Amino acid sequence: MTVDLNSDLGEGHGSWAMGDDDTLLSIVTSANVACGFHAGDPSIMRHVTAQAVANGVAIGAHVAYRDLTGFGRRFIDVDAPTLRDEVTYQMGALDAITRQAGGRVTYVKPHGGLYNAIVHHEEQARAVVAAVAAYDRSLVLMGLPGSVVLHLAEKEGLQVAHEAFADRAYTPEGTLVSRKEPGAVLHDAAQIAQRCIAMATGEPIKDINGDPLTLTPDSICVHGDTPGAVEIARQVRSALEQAGIELAPFARAKPDTARDA
Amino acid sequence: MTVDLNSDLGEGHGSWAMGDDDTLLSIVTSANVACGFHAGDPSIMRHVTAQAVANGVAIGAHVAYRDLTGFGRRFIDVDAPTLRDEVTYQMGALDAITRQAGGRVTYVKPHGGLYNAIVHHEEQARAVVAAVAAYDRSLVLMGLPGSVVLHLAEKEGLQVAHEAFADRAYTPEGTLVSRKEPGAVLHDAAQIAQRCIAMATGEPIKDINGDPLTLTPDSICVHGDTPGAVEIARQVRSALEQAGIELAPFARAKPDTARDA
Amino acid sequence: MTVDLNSDLGEGHGSWAMGDDDTLLSIVTSANVACGFHAGDPSIMRHVTAQAVANGVAIGAHVAYRDLTGFGRRFIDVDAPTLRDEVTYQMGALDAITRQAGGRVTYVKPHGGLYNAIVHHEEQARAVVAAVAAYDRSLVLMGLPGSVVLHLAEKEGLQVAHEAFADRAYTPEGTLVSRKEPGAVLHDAAQIAQRCIAMATGEPIKDINGDPLTLTPDSICVHGDTPGAVEIARQVRSALEQAGIELAPFARAKPDTARDA
Amino acid sequence: MTVDLNSDLGEGHGSWAMGDDDTLLSIVTSANVACGFHAGDPSIMRHVTAQAVANGVAIGAHVAYRDLTGFGRRFIDVDAPTLRDEVTYQMGALDAITRQAGGRVTYVKPHGGLYNAIVHHEEQARAVVAAVAAYDRSLVLMGLPGSVVLHLAEKEGLQVAHEAFADRAYTPEGTLVSRKEPGAVLHDAAQIAQRCIAMATGEPIKDINGDPLTLTPDSICVHGDTPGAVEIARQVRSALEQAGIELAPFARAKPDTARDA
Repeated sequence: MTVDLNSDLGEGHGSWAMGDDDTLLSIVTSANVACGFHAGDPSIMRHVTAQAVANGVAIGAHVAYRDLTGFGRRFIDVDAPTLRDEVTYQMGALDAITRQAGGRVTYVKPHGGLYNAIVHHEEQARAVVAAVAAYDRSLVLMGLPGSVVLHLAEKEGLQVAHEAFADRAYTPEGTLVSRKEPGAVLHDAAQIAQRCIAMATGEPIKDINGDPLTLTPDSICVHGDTPGAVEIARQVRSALEQAGIELAPFARAKPDTARDA
Repeated sequence: MTVDLNSDLGEGHGSWAMGDDDTLLSIVTSANVACGFHAGDPSIMRHVTAQAVANGVAIGAHVAYRDLTGFGRRFIDVDAPTLRDEVTYQMGALDAITRQAGGRVTYVKPHGGLYNAIVHHEEQARAVVAAVAAYDRSLVLMGLPGSVVLHLAEKEGLQVAHEAFADRAYTPEGTLVSRKEPGAVLHDAAQIAQRCIAMATGEPIKDINGDPLTLTPDSICVHGDTPGAVEIARQVRSALEQAGIELAPFARAKPDTARDA
Repeated sequence: MTVDLNSDLGEGHGSWAMGDDDTLLSIVTSANVACGFHAGDPSIMRHVTAQAVANGVAIGAHVAYRDLTGFGRRFIDVDAPTLRDEVTYQMGALDAITRQAGGRVTYVKPHGGLYNAIVHHEEQARAVVAAVAAYDRSLVLMGLPGSVVLHLAEKEGLQVAHEAFADRAYTPEGTLVSRKEPGAVLHDAAQIAQRCIAMATGEPIKDINGDPLTLTPDSICVHGDTPGAVEIARQVRSALEQAGIELAPFARAKPDTARDA
Repeated sequence: MTVDLNSDLGEGHGSWAMGDDDTLLSIVTSANVACGFHAGDPSIMRHVTAQAVANGVAIGAHVAYRDLTGFGRRFIDVDAPTLRDEVTYQMGALDAITRQAGGRVTYVKPHGGLYNAIVHHEEQARAVVAAVAAYDRSLVLMGLPGSVVLHLAEKEGLQVAHEAFADRAYTPEGTLVSRKEPGAVLHDAAQIAQRCIAMATGEPIKDINGDPLTLTPDSICVHGDTPGAVEIARQVRSALEQAGIELAPFARAKPDTARDA
C-alpha cells in the first residue's frame, strides 16, 4: 500500500516568505510549486525544485490565475485562449528551472481560484486540459474527484490524479464542506492522521454527518503555511509510516517521457 | 553568401499593440520574441511563434529585466542569482509556447537595458551566460561584438552571434554612436540597405567620421515599431535579395538538440 | 440646453499608447482618466490631466480592477473591503497628480469589468459607493442608469450622473444590447450624431426594435481608441454645436469642495 | 528633550505579511507607510493608517521605486519625470487612504534603493524634491544627513528631517558603515538603547573606530521586520522614557496645512 502526500510550496515572492518549504520537503512526496502568477518567483522556484530533487519529491506545476495581489484565490473571468496560454507559460517556466535542478515536472495542479472554478467552469477547464495536452501528454493533471476538469482530461486521454484533503470535512456526496460552515476544517492532528490512514487503505472516513464515506485519492493534500500545519503534516506522515503505508509520489519522473525521448 | 535579419517582435501586452508583427515576420529571418518581462504575454507569444514557424523564421528568447512599465529599457541593479533565474524562467516560458506551435527556441537575445548593461557589467553578463549554459547548450547567445557577455559566453563554450544594427552609426572602434549624438540613427532607406549589403558581403561601411569600418555580423537588426521602420526593413530585404544575398536564420532549429535527443 | 461628452482617456501604459488623447481632449467635456490599475501610469496621468485643465475638460477617476494585462475588462471576484480600498487608492493617486496640474477630480467612473459588475453586483457596488462617500462627498459617481451602484449612491446621498452611449443600441427597457448581438454597435457617424442630439434635447431615440425610447443622460460616452472613433466623436460634437446645444462638463471643479474648504 | 522614533511599516502585500505592524505602532512615533510600489497594498495601508491615527503616530509616505519583486531595494535608472510622477502618485494614494482614516500624511521618506540613490544621484533627488514641493509644501522630507536630496530640499524651501539609525555603525564622517563591513549592524539591545539616548540628548556616540561622533537626528529609525527587531525597538523606547526623554512625532498633522486651509 502506498500513498502520496502533496503540499503547496514555493509560495513566497521576492522578500516575502510563506510557509516552511524546507521542512515540508522532508515530509511530503509531491511538491506543488508556485510558478510566479499567484506566488513564487524564479529564485524561489529554483530553491524549491533543487530541494525537491535532493529529497526525491515529485515536482508539479501549481498553475494559477495571474493575480499576485490576490494570491490567485479570486475567480477571474479570463477567456479560454488566454488561460490556456498562461497555463502553458507557467508550465514551461517551471520546467526550465526544474531541468536546471536536474529534475522534471511530472504533474500539474491548478491553484486556488482556478482549482475551484474548474470544478464546474467548463470553458476554463477545457483551457487547462488543452494546455497540458498540447505541451506534454505525460504530465498528470491533479484535481478534485468529480470535477469537470478531470472528466475532460480523461476524455482527452490524459492521466489524472484524484486529490483528497487531510484536514477538510466532506459532504455525503464526497464534496468539500464549505469553509463558511462550522466544522469544515479539522484541527486535531491525531484525527487528521487517522483519516489519512483510512483514505490510504480504502477504509471509509466519516462525513460531516458522521456517516461512512470512502475516498480513494491518488494524493492527499497537507498544508504548510503555518507552524501548526507543518506539525500536523509531520504527524500525518509519521502515522502513515507506522501503519505500514509507503509514501511515494504518484507521478515520478520517468526517463521515457515524450520530451526526453 | 547569406545573412540573417532579426527584429524585436511580440512587444505588445494585453490590449496594447506595438509594431506590425505579422508584416515583419514576412521580412526577417529571426524573431526576438518578448517573454513577458518587458513586453509580450502568453497569447502574443503564441501568435508570434506560430507565425514564425509558418514563415520559417527562427525564434529567439528576447529576455529582459522584470520591468513592464519601463519596457525593460532601464538599468536595474538586480543581483546575479536573481537575474540568472529570471532569464531561465523566460526561456522556459517561451520554449513551452514555441513547442506547442511546433517550433524550437534556437537563440537568446537580451533586451534593452539588459543588452546594454552586459556589454560591460560582468556580474550580470555572467548570470545570463550561466542561465543559457545550464538550460540548453545548443542555444546561441546573440549580443554586441566586443561585449563582455559574448566574451564570457565563448569562454563557457557557447555559440555566439555577433549583431549589427542596420540603422545605427558606428564609432571608429566599431561601437554604437550614442543616440544622444547627432547622426546616431540613420533614416534613409537606400543608405541603410546599402550598409546591410556591405555588412553581408564583408565590405566596409563608413563609420561616423566617414572612414571605412568592416563589420562581419552574424545577424543584422532591423526595427519594426513604426510604419516607417517596417518599410525600411522591407527595402533592406529587397536590396539584399537583389544583390544575390541569401536570407537565412543564423540559428535554425535542428532535430538533434540536446533537449530532443 | 447643455450636454456633456465623456471619453476614456490616458489608457496607454509605459511605452504603449492607446487612442489619441490630445485630440479627444479638444472634443469632449469630461475625461475619464485611467488611474494605473487597468491602464495609465503616473506620467500619462500627468499629461492628460494637464491637457484637460488647459482645455477646461472635467477630470474623472476611471477606477478599475487591478488588472493591467486584462485591461480591467474581466470580472474579478474581489472582496468588498479590498475593492473599497483599491478605489480609494486610485482616486487619491489621480487627485494628487491632478492637483499638481492645477485641477481637481470632480467625478468617478468605474471602468470596464467593474462598471458592468456593479450594474448588478451589490457587494462590489456598495464598496465603490463607500469609497467615494468616505473620500470626498462632493465627487459625482457616474454609471449606468438603473444600476445597483447608482441606486446605492443616491441612498448614500451622493450625486450621480446617468451615462448614455453614443454608439450602442438599446433594448426597449433602456439597457444596452449585448455586443454579441447583431446591431449592438452603431458605426454611422451621422446616425450617431442624431441620436446624441435627441438624447441632449429629451427627444426619443429608436431602440433595437425601432420603437421610441427616451433617455435623459447627464453625460454621453464617445470612444477614442481608433482613428474612426475619434472622427465620429468630432462629428458628434460638431452636430451638437450646430443644433445649438451647449457642451459643458456635468461636474465642474468648484472652489468650495470639502477638500478645499 | 524630545525625540522621534520611526519605523518602516505596512510592508506586507496581499497574502504576504512582513513585520509586526500593530506592535511597532505602540512603540514608534512616526510610521513610514509603504505605498504599494515596493510593498503595501490599499488594505494594508488602511489598516496601518487607522492604527497610526488611533495611537497618535505620525504618518509618512514611504515612497519607492516601482519594484514589488525586488522590494524597492535595487537601484533603477528611472528618468526624473517618471520618478517625480511616481512619487506624486504614491503620496496621493496614501493621502486618500489616510484621510479616510481621519489622519493626514505629514512627511515623506524615500525607501531602500531610492533612499540610497538620492544620497548622491542629483537627477533623481531633484525629482523627489519636485514631487513633494508641487504636491504639498507642508510635507517634511526625511533623509540621510548630508545627502543631496536634503540639500536640494532645503534650497527649495522644504522642511527636512535628519534621520539616524539606531542599529547601524557610523564612519568618522557620520556616514553609515557598509553592511558588507564587519560591525556594520549592532545587535545588542542595551547598547542600541544607549546610543539612542545619546543621539536624543546631543551627546556623542562612538563611531566605528571608537571615537566620539555627535549626531543630532530629528528622527531615529528602528526596525521591525523580525521578532528580535521589535524587542530591540521596545527596549529603545523604554530606555528613552526612563531617561526622561519625551517621544513625539517630528511632524504632527496640523489643522492649518495648505491642503486643508
